[in-house]
Amino acid sequence: MEKYKKELEYSYTFGVFPTIELIKNQPNKVQAILLSSKFKQSEETEKYFAPYAQKGMVQINDKLVNKLADKENTFVIGVFKKYTCKCLPKGNQVVLVNPSDMGNLGTIMRTMLGFKITNLVLITPCADVFNPKTIRASMGAIFSLNIASYASFEEYAKQHSEHKKYLFMLNGKSVLGKFEPPENNYALVFGNESSGLPPYVEDFGQSVVISHSHQIDSLNLPMSVGISLYEFTKNHIF
Amino acid sequence: MEKYKKELEYSYTFGVFPTIELIKNQPNKVQAILLSSKFKQSEETEKYFAPYAQKGMVQINDKLVNKLADKENTFVIGVFKKYTCKCLPKGNQVVLVNPSDMGNLGTIMRTMLGFKITNLVLITPCADVFNPKTIRASMGAIFSLNIASYASFEEYAKQHSEHKKYLFMLNGKSVLGKFEPPENNYALVFGNESSGLPPYVEDFGQSVVISHSHQIDSLNLPMSVGISLYEFTKNHIF
Repeated sequence: MEKYKKELEYSYTFGVFPTIELIKNQPNKVQAILLSSKFKQSEETEKYFAPYAQKGMVQINDKLVNKLADKENTFVIGVFKKYTCKCLPKGNQVVLVNPSDMGNLGTIMRTMLGFKITNLVLITPCADVFNPKTIRASMGAIFSLNIASYASFEEYAKQHSEHKKYLFMLNGKSVLGKFEPPENNYALVFGNESSGLPPYVEDFGQSVVISHSHQIDSLNLPMSVGISLYEFTKNHIF
Repeated sequence: MEKYKKELEYSYTFGVFPTIELIKNQPNKVQAILLSSKFKQSEETEKYFAPYAQKGMVQINDKLVNKLADKENTFVIGVFKKYTCKCLPKGNQVVLVNPSDMGNLGTIMRTMLGFKITNLVLITPCADVFNPKTIRASMGAIFSLNIASYASFEEYAKQHSEHKKYLFMLNGKSVLGKFEPPENNYALVFGNESSGLPPYVEDFGQSVVISHSHQIDSLNLPMSVGISLYEFTKNHIF
């Protein structure tokens, strides 16, 4: 096992919390659990690690933990096989077109799970989904989401024509909060942090703006996603 | 001039954009403008820098720029005197009790300016407001806000008794979006990233929760603030 890089077919969770999220939600993807000799098992970790320990997949290995971890004081590392979702289950979607920041991507994942929208579509090129930085920012939420990638927005749209697409743009024609969001079959679509959505996507749905003052260029990407998720779910889910 | 540390009475803006925000909004706090010899003036920067150039406050100094900057490719640095706001102007407020992360603090500043709530109250201990990291995350929005600090929530509450306080807590009694927010004289109060608001503050106002699934511990702090600002302002400001 080597230090993380994008090309690897596996990745790592650093710390107890995301490792337990991995085990709970993607138990078959776990390849190994690495522990520092400083790690003290709790009843909870023993319960979650037991099935892997029985198969010899748990090892105490300070040298390896230190080599792989990106921060000191990492005592637990989960090793898992990367995966993709070939066919998204039914349900509402968040679509990110070319997101470039791993921290933003993780924050969006965590917020999606908070609002019970669990289908995430990524249009490539895109920040590295399984980079440990993304996983950390998601606080493990990544393992509860269904994530699919497409090479272009058109290809995505062709395969998901039944979803009404809301395209978040600074010059959007509808104002968030001034129309009644549907309960089902919608996709909230957001562009890249710097460049936003390309104008041609407007043909695929309804463009929407989140009103804000002209003293800022734009809200940041996770904020725009979070506010939209709040508005779309507040009368339906909670 | 030395590399930034909290104890200094001055701080720095790194890059053209925040430096222009500094000049536009806090012109009297500017102490110097430092340029790299690689920096190419535009019409805009010339206009903003001219009054300082006339007073001999603009200098081209590669060695100093390299010494002070925290990133390569910094070509412009604004040097400014730190300031505090002794008396907040009228208007709605965001109150942060012991926020600990500079990135979060800056993101909240930028979002506040986006929703035209420009009075920020900080209850100390608190992340370093004028650290260049906070300034960068705020994208210069910090210079458009009125910021006041108090050593305790009680002291703040005593001096701002006319503001109705909405206390965002995971066990809040009201649900955001299920009551009509007032237009004026309110303060939105948020606790520390890890520990939230201490229970005793509930005596000072109305506790509010932002509904979210139990699959996440909480929304992150800037997200909670941004969603609340959206909900409170959407029928009044925009």
